[in-house]
Amino acid sequence: MILRDPVHGLVAFESEEEAVVEALLGAVEVQRLRRIRQLGLTALAYPGADHTRFAHAIGAAFVMKLLIARLRSIQDTLPFWQRITTERARDALAAALLHDVGHGPFSHLFEEALPGTPRHEEWTARIILDPSTEVHRTLAKFDPYMPGRVAELVRGRHELTFLARSVSGTFDVDRCDYLLRDAYATGVSYGTFDLDWLLRSLRFGVASVSGAVPPLAVDGPRGLPAIESFILARLFMFQQVYFHKASRSSEWMLITIFRRVRALLEDGTRLPGVPKALESLIRKGDAALDDYLALDDCWLLVALDAWRSVKDPVLSDLTTRLHTRRLFKTFELYGNFAGRAARQTLLERARQVATAHGVDADVYVGLDAVSDVPFDDREDSLAVIFPDGKPSKPGDVSFLLGRLRGQALERARLIFPVELRDAIIAELAL
Amino acid sequence: MILRDPVHGLVAFESEEEAVVEALLGAVEVQRLRRIRQLGLTALAYPGADHTRFAHAIGAAFVMKLLIARLRSIQDTLPFWQRITTERARDALAAALLHDVGHGPFSHLFEEALPGTPRHEEWTARIILDPSTEVHRTLAKFDPYMPGRVAELVRGRHELTFLARSVSGTFDVDRCDYLLRDAYATGVSYGTFDLDWLLRSLRFGVASVSGAVPPLAVDGPRGLPAIESFILARLFMFQQVYFHKASRSSEWMLITIFRRVRALLEDGTRLPGVPKALESLIRKGDAALDDYLALDDCWLLVALDAWRSVKDPVLSDLTTRLHTRRLFKTFELYGNFAGRAARQTLLERARQVATAHGVDADVYVGLDAVSDVPFDDREDSLAVIFPDGKPSKPGDVSFLLGRLRGQALERARLIFPVELRDAIIAELAL
Amino acid sequence: MILRDPVHGLVAFESEEEAVVEALLGAVEVQRLRRIRQLGLTALAYPGADHTRFAHAIGAAFVMKLLIARLRSIQDTLPFWQRITTERARDALAAALLHDVGHGPFSHLFEEALPGTPRHEEWTARIILDPSTEVHRTLAKFDPYMPGRVAELVRGRHELTFLARSVSGTFDVDRCDYLLRDAYATGVSYGTFDLDWLLRSLRFGVASVSGAVPPLAVDGPRGLPAIESFILARLFMFQQVYFHKASRSSEWMLITIFRRVRALLEDGTRLPGVPKALESLIRKGDAALDDYLALDDCWLLVALDAWRSVKDPVLSDLTTRLHTRRLFKTFELYGNFAGRAARQTLLERARQVATAHGVDADVYVGLDAVSDVPFDDREDSLAVIFPDGKPSKPGDVSFLLGRLRGQALERARLIFPVELRDAIIAELAL
Amino acid sequence: MILRDPVHGLVAFESEEEAVVEALLGAVEVQRLRRIRQLGLTALAYPGADHTRFAHAIGAAFVMKLLIARLRSIQDTLPFWQRITTERARDALAAALLHDVGHGPFSHLFEEALPGTPRHEEWTARIILDPSTEVHRTLAKFDPYMPGRVAELVRGRHELTFLARSVSGTFDVDRCDYLLRDAYATGVSYGTFDLDWLLRSLRFGVASVSGAVPPLAVDGPRGLPAIESFILARLFMFQQVYFHKASRSSEWMLITIFRRVRALLEDGTRLPGVPKALESLIRKGDAALDDYLALDDCWLLVALDAWRSVKDPVLSDLTTRLHTRRLFKTFELYGNFAGRAARQTLLERARQVATAHGVDADVYVGLDAVSDVPFDDREDSLAVIFPDGKPSKPGDVSFLLGRLRGQALERARLIFPVELRDAIIAELAL
Repeated sequence: MILRDPVHGLVAFESEEEAVVEALLGAVEVQRLRRIRQLGLTALAYPGADHTRFAHAIGAAFVMKLLIARLRSIQDTLPFWQRITTERARDALAAALLHDVGHGPFSHLFEEALPGTPRHEEWTARIILDPSTEVHRTLAKFDPYMPGRVAELVRGRHELTFLARSVSGTFDVDRCDYLLRDAYATGVSYGTFDLDWLLRSLRFGVASVSGAVPPLAVDGPRGLPAIESFILARLFMFQQVYFHKASRSSEWMLITIFRRVRALLEDGTRLPGVPKALESLIRKGDAALDDYLALDDCWLLVALDAWRSVKDPVLSDLTTRLHTRRLFKTFELYGNFAGRAARQTLLERARQVATAHGVDADVYVGLDAVSDVPFDDREDSLAVIFPDGKPSKPGDVSFLLGRLRGQALERARLIFPVELRDAIIAELAL
Repeated sequence: MILRDPVHGLVAFESEEEAVVEALLGAVEVQRLRRIRQLGLTALAYPGADHTRFAHAIGAAFVMKLLIARLRSIQDTLPFWQRITTERARDALAAALLHDVGHGPFSHLFEEALPGTPRHEEWTARIILDPSTEVHRTLAKFDPYMPGRVAELVRGRHELTFLARSVSGTFDVDRCDYLLRDAYATGVSYGTFDLDWLLRSLRFGVASVSGAVPPLAVDGPRGLPAIESFILARLFMFQQVYFHKASRSSEWMLITIFRRVRALLEDGTRLPGVPKALESLIRKGDAALDDYLALDDCWLLVALDAWRSVKDPVLSDLTTRLHTRRLFKTFELYGNFAGRAARQTLLERARQVATAHGVDADVYVGLDAVSDVPFDDREDSLAVIFPDGKPSKPGDVSFLLGRLRGQALERARLIFPVELRDAIIAELAL
Repeated sequence: MILRDPVHGLVAFESEEEAVVEALLGAVEVQRLRRIRQLGLTALAYPGADHTRFAHAIGAAFVMKLLIARLRSIQDTLPFWQRITTERARDALAAALLHDVGHGPFSHLFEEALPGTPRHEEWTARIILDPSTEVHRTLAKFDPYMPGRVAELVRGRHELTFLARSVSGTFDVDRCDYLLRDAYATGVSYGTFDLDWLLRSLRFGVASVSGAVPPLAVDGPRGLPAIESFILARLFMFQQVYFHKASRSSEWMLITIFRRVRALLEDGTRLPGVPKALESLIRKGDAALDDYLALDDCWLLVALDAWRSVKDPVLSDLTTRLHTRRLFKTFELYGNFAGRAARQTLLERARQVATAHGVDADVYVGLDAVSDVPFDDREDSLAVIFPDGKPSKPGDVSFLLGRLRGQALERARLIFPVELRDAIIAELAL
Repeated sequence: MILRDPVHGLVAFESEEEAVVEALLGAVEVQRLRRIRQLGLTALAYPGADHTRFAHAIGAAFVMKLLIARLRSIQDTLPFWQRITTERARDALAAALLHDVGHGPFSHLFEEALPGTPRHEEWTARIILDPSTEVHRTLAKFDPYMPGRVAELVRGRHELTFLARSVSGTFDVDRCDYLLRDAYATGVSYGTFDLDWLLRSLRFGVASVSGAVPPLAVDGPRGLPAIESFILARLFMFQQVYFHKASRSSEWMLITIFRRVRALLEDGTRLPGVPKALESLIRKGDAALDDYLALDDCWLLVALDAWRSVKDPVLSDLTTRLHTRRLFKTFELYGNFAGRAARQTLLERARQVATAHGVDADVYVGLDAVSDVPFDDREDSLAVIFPDGKPSKPGDVSFLLGRLRGQALERARLIFPVELRDAIIAELAL
């Protein structure tokens, strides 16, 4: 099969080992990803961000194909048992394609909204391992042990650690694809990096013990700018997109809606458009796989629409605001305001304002605090190998990365409805 | 307001006259476009093609903003009454944003599937003119006559014909945006053209009668390549995307599904997930505006999913195939096979094969014939004005366009399920 | 070796067979291409067009590398003797890199200015075959017969005709690179095409005689748009760049300057800055290879500068105009004016105007007529192979190419100094 | 005038105040920039880097045009006397176009090679102020005081400090253009930044004293990523291009060549191809403006070629190596080796190796140490203005810039001919 992808251009899977990709694309659980947006509600902030998990899954498999080609071009120095065989390549391609197959509606949002229920990694494993799924049967047709191996790989476990980490690690094929794809769809141009150079600069490092599997490394200083631009692309995407105030606000609203639905259901209220899986997740903390797979963005959007007319005024109000993009406002906490204690004080004062205005502070006022460490090589990362063979940590040899190492990027924001904005800002200015 | 668009980069609407754009984006009928894909089922062929009518609407308004700026920079030669006032600019921006607000689920597909019901242009007019809509009320707040004027503009009527044609004409802002956006989302790189040069090369032509409104023209030969690349971009997009076999096949399947639903409903069969508007459209040929606006891609996808389990074997089969992307196959008719009579003969033979295999030919075999004339300036088009002031038709002075003028691009394909492929091809090869 | 190219991105030549590229780049005759602009005087029209033959030579070798990889992935169907061996690959890479090594200052301009002297193809062959050059010695070190084989390949002769035509044919690596590179440097964005798809769609056609070498073909209809966009890219580049009035005018001036230098030298006038090779070419129609290789853009620009102060008023005037970009004006002949007879009449009338103004018409008035056939597959071109194995000519199956086939793009212009413009235009308007 | 630029797309200068750009482009001193490469010898490392100062000059003027448009859209809050009048706009456009008109052959290289002679800024001032130049006469035709004002602006002096700093400051039009242009030509994709957003986010800050001219600031946090990406683009270009080992090595060779030429001339040796200006600069430390303007890349390349055959073995050897790109090798000093004292010790040891091999260490061994501070806002930079009107330093509010502030990027390398490589590396490894 061959197709045109806006991010990678010509994408072909044609060799014998690549046939697994085409076979898996025919599975209903993979086709379901067409109905799950990669970036949840981010399209409310970036109108182009309607791309799906399906396109990303193909992209990740394609990056794996490129990576496998690179690994094969440098594996002469490895003993035979450490090389990429046809079987290992097939497993890796399948794992790359399936790494996110368990995502619920609006991707990460769904599991954040339902704490205590299985996370998407767990659903992914179930989909791969459950004999009833088309994904499982497709893999098992290649080899009965393949589902098990692929599930392990997706969890980041493989005897070739470098292969495991290419599915789940700092520079894995998932990140390589989603950074480029999210940047492309949102138009945030500085969210890109040089994938070709990054792949090209890969080489094998030195095994910790003689005979052990060597880690992947980059050829420095040539490979260093490729790593730097990758880390920066990620940093920019967090600053500009993933932590964007409208994304965060809408996600916060959705989570609040789910919390409300949960409370109503627990109270015995009947709500329209609640599918089996949701009810089950809320009541029992888990759901049947079949039912879970029936959930997708469309189901959720239709349900949100239906809940606009329920009797519960809170649920009706919140869903109406979200449906018509009347998002809650945010007030970002900088400097002295951003400390942990200060935040709580400010939240408390905002809640009091709400109460004074007759608004339920538990539902309508919140604090959203997110954090990411864009780069840290102290525990683990690609080493940089110099011409003399000596490996270094990227942060030790990169001007830029040395300064970013271990530093946390944080954003804290108060969240509240527009009608409280003036009052809350006035209160906080005191 | 200012936002980042992957196609146009920085998109800002900040002046007083542009405030209408932000106001309209808050209307629920415009927000609904977030749930209507620009290219229907094309994502089945191009995995990136999940962009929505909402992003396109903003893009069209932005191109209008650029166009207005250009018109103002050249309008010194016009009498005052022919110039772009603030009011006209506001009307034009609103018309550009709203030109497609009446589209149903999956855009053009919906109206093709329900012949005899109002087309999207009619729904657009209703949305603008009906006093109950937020769109109407937003416009009327600016000026009570504004809804009427905008509706006229969307229909391509305005005293300044050049303004009318910029909303609906050969080089209108709709096309300017959708060509670039569809190319961007699908990755079909040759579907682009040079919008900056096209706008920059615009000038006013010579009015047919002294005192009349002059038509727009391009400054030639500088503007000619911009027109050529626009026409070619459109031609390539038709060949590569709009007439793509998987797009056409899936659209044909959807239309067949609708026809089946119609038949079942007329028979009195009860089906799940059929909204009021659809039932009404099928039974009475029309629907209430409110009900129509409740339709979007999500509703349709959820309904298709629900119909997979109905008793009717045909509806159940077709929806299952579409849901899992088991698309009908196509056999393209070239050369001698493509003539009108030959096509019918071939269709008849394919139908007989189906019947011989116990398959209902009325449902499972079809002929899809589409046609587009990429360029024709014999009736109307931008004139090219030479340094000596003489206007020419583009086809008279362009090497390329002279050869394309009036030529029809056609595609004819037999459509049938995969299980009939070998038998039908064998039959046709006889 | 690995380098960063603005057109192709990461360019690497690292395998054993590719070592020839790095070796040849060290040859002084190849380094000389750094001082020869790819597009002659075109930078006078497009300020970005300062790229050199050196960058293009590397680019052509890189496209050859991509082509070889594609050929190897499809050559299983060929008998062993028709496959791409290491030796053939090395020859092809060398031929791609060296195909234009014989160009003189400002590329094509130099040979046009000196009719009757060896053309650049001849100089290329001499450089490859003359045992005194570093190019020759580098090739001979690989294999004493290699210079001869490479020279043949550059001439388009090889037992594998598809390899020969990839060095010199309708879709050769030279064109593939220069179209992309010239478009990149000038910013003429529609001068691009989809190289990846063009390469990817290549397959072997059917040999004319059983056992003969099959021609290359493209897999249609998938490959058709790639061919179409290639042909159109070329057409656009001719219209926009290669036939641009300022390029043509400056080239016409340079040719006139050379003609004057020739006349002066033949008269025995001594001029500064005339290198041996030029004198010899003018006097004897040929030059020693060593002397020829001393010529480059810099030498020519320095000489033009020096000639500004010679006594001959014509040479001094023309070089001063060119040095300060006071280019001759052009008057394009369209429609009735463009016919062969009409042109001569108009030229005659323009010459009379010049004479009436006391200007030497032989030097200062000219007619520049250029022509190119963007597409013609009647004699030879890539065939398009359909799923059923039937080959067709592209023009028979492409909507676009069918309409362009054999059509000539022509431009005819009168050329004259700015001070005659008004008088000549007045005369022609009569 | 309107032209196509590969970096900025459509570049037009058409208004009355912009006419100065077209007028100045006709000046012989500006046309001379066509023969001066922007990046000196960098094309030896990046084959695409043959772009000229001429294209950059136009680009800088175009960025100024964009900046002026932005300033005008926000200047309502300024008193009338602080606004951009037609005259000020014209001065600023001229200053942007002319800011580097005084550069010598290979730009910065020439002045580095001739310490003690006037720097390019001084030559720029002379060209603008000397009544004999076409540049001067062109400006004076607009207004006799214009040359003086433009010269002041180029030096970064103007009553509107924000205008002065846009010609010469941290975010001046020079940098804005050269970063984008150098990135485009070399293909170093991460050397780009978002010019549109940077311009769009500009606003006026708060004047230090009431009534004083306010500084420019950016609207934060929206403008922050634009500044960050600008700073990073610059950092990447330094790391990847400006400090590239092949660029540095070739520049070091050229400087050594100049030093040798100087020594030979001072000894009374006669050398071919030495123009008046060079002789004068070497002997007297200065040259006549006319003579200086005769210098360009071509003259220098022709001279280097001529010097290959002089008797002096050192000059002949060095020029031959440079001509055929047999560049000196570099050994980068990291970590402990990079300290100031360590460097000198290593240099001394490398010199001893050279001497032991009978090579003149003064000529053939060198230490190249370069340094740049990518970002420092402690003295001066754009402030970031928050919604509440409070200005902050970028480093105080940017996660990234806070970590880069004041940090120096350094590169130190030993430089030596290839034949000493093994011996020197062996010695240093001890």
